[in-house]
Amino acid sequence: MNIDKYPSKLLENAVNEFSKLPGIGRKSALRLVLHLLKQDVEAVNYFGNSLIQLRNEIKHCRICHNITDFEICPICNNHLRNRSVICVVENIRDVMSIENTQQFNGLYHVLGGIISPMDGIGPADLEIESLVKRVEKGEIIEIILALSTTMEGDTTNFYIYRKLKDKEVRLTTLARGVSVGDELEYTDEITLGRSLANRVPYETSMGK
Amino acid sequence: MNIDKYPSKLLENAVNEFSKLPGIGRKSALRLVLHLLKQDVEAVNYFGNSLIQLRNEIKHCRICHNITDFEICPICNNHLRNRSVICVVENIRDVMSIENTQQFNGLYHVLGGIISPMDGIGPADLEIESLVKRVEKGEIIEIILALSTTMEGDTTNFYIYRKLKDKEVRLTTLARGVSVGDELEYTDEITLGRSLANRVPYETSMGK
Repeated sequence: MNIDKYPSKLLENAVNEFSKLPGIGRKSALRLVLHLLKQDVEAVNYFGNSLIQLRNEIKHCRICHNITDFEICPICNNHLRNRSVICVVENIRDVMSIENTQQFNGLYHVLGGIISPMDGIGPADLEIESLVKRVEKGEIIEIILALSTTMEGDTTNFYIYRKLKDKEVRLTTLARGVSVGDELEYTDEITLGRSLANRVPYETSMGK
Repeated sequence: MNIDKYPSKLLENAVNEFSKLPGIGRKSALRLVLHLLKQDVEAVNYFGNSLIQLRNEIKHCRICHNITDFEICPICNNHLRNRSVICVVENIRDVMSIENTQQFNGLYHVLGGIISPMDGIGPADLEIESLVKRVEKGEIIEIILALSTTMEGDTTNFYIYRKLKDKEVRLTTLARGVSVGDELEYTDEITLGRSLANRVPYETSMGK
């Protein structure tokens, strides 16, 4: 279906805007817009305004750069958390994933992306300098690098390592290995190799 | 990932709104919202306002009920079109599909849905009375029923047929048959059966 002919400019406009979103083509955009047209005026006003309000009023935590409604996010403000460990992640979705494990009680540092020359993202575009400054304050014992194991993630890890290797801080990275519940025969060789090289005492694996 | 803990109320709000859209779950909604957060303030304002404006200002054509920016849509207003044939469709996407074939030069009538007791949609919720009124004006020679071949579509067809069978108007329906380019062995039996029963002279099939 050639969908360049819309019966209304307003409709076309809304479809154009929706189809700019990642993973939404023009056909899906039209479906979403027609769905909105069937909703109450108040509901659509609320939808539109919630996006405008979000973009205009959202803040980033001054310390960890996570998204928040305050100057300092509730995690950085929580004095029950271990303030000597920082987990470095790419974006706020990673913070949410790690928080949901309930296995981490330290603080975060959200880089806002990873070094990716292909996308024109260099170290200066990320919150790396502010991480170095946090470390230089001297209260941090350990930095956990929790970036993805892609080439870009490895590059970013190495850049941060070079920046911090002379500071008094321990650099660790997430364990890579066979997923819990996965069968060995379906695990790729690199992961299986790494999980052999980094094998742990049996007692540790039991969560002790 | 349990995604009920958002670091910001504004974020949660926007994610809630996006996930009300059909086919968008909470994870996709979060992805879309984070994408919007990376865009310029102006771009997001424009997006939000385009939706609000659409819902508040869009009109439905007084004659065919298609979506339009005017009182009467450009198709109904086009005096070069054949004003004695009306194609009855479910929604505006069907109008766009048929327009894109460039094979139809008549007018449309958008029902705004089909009769579906399961969804609580009865004949009174659809633009059927206004269709009967258009026919009663006496200028219409043919009504093409172009609804989907589902039970709901058949029910709606039959309802319209009962309303119009005593009027001076020819009722036709779209030809059902093997799709152009499809192989016979992959065509379902009902479609193949109908395309046999409704076979056409070879010359017709050549588009003459």
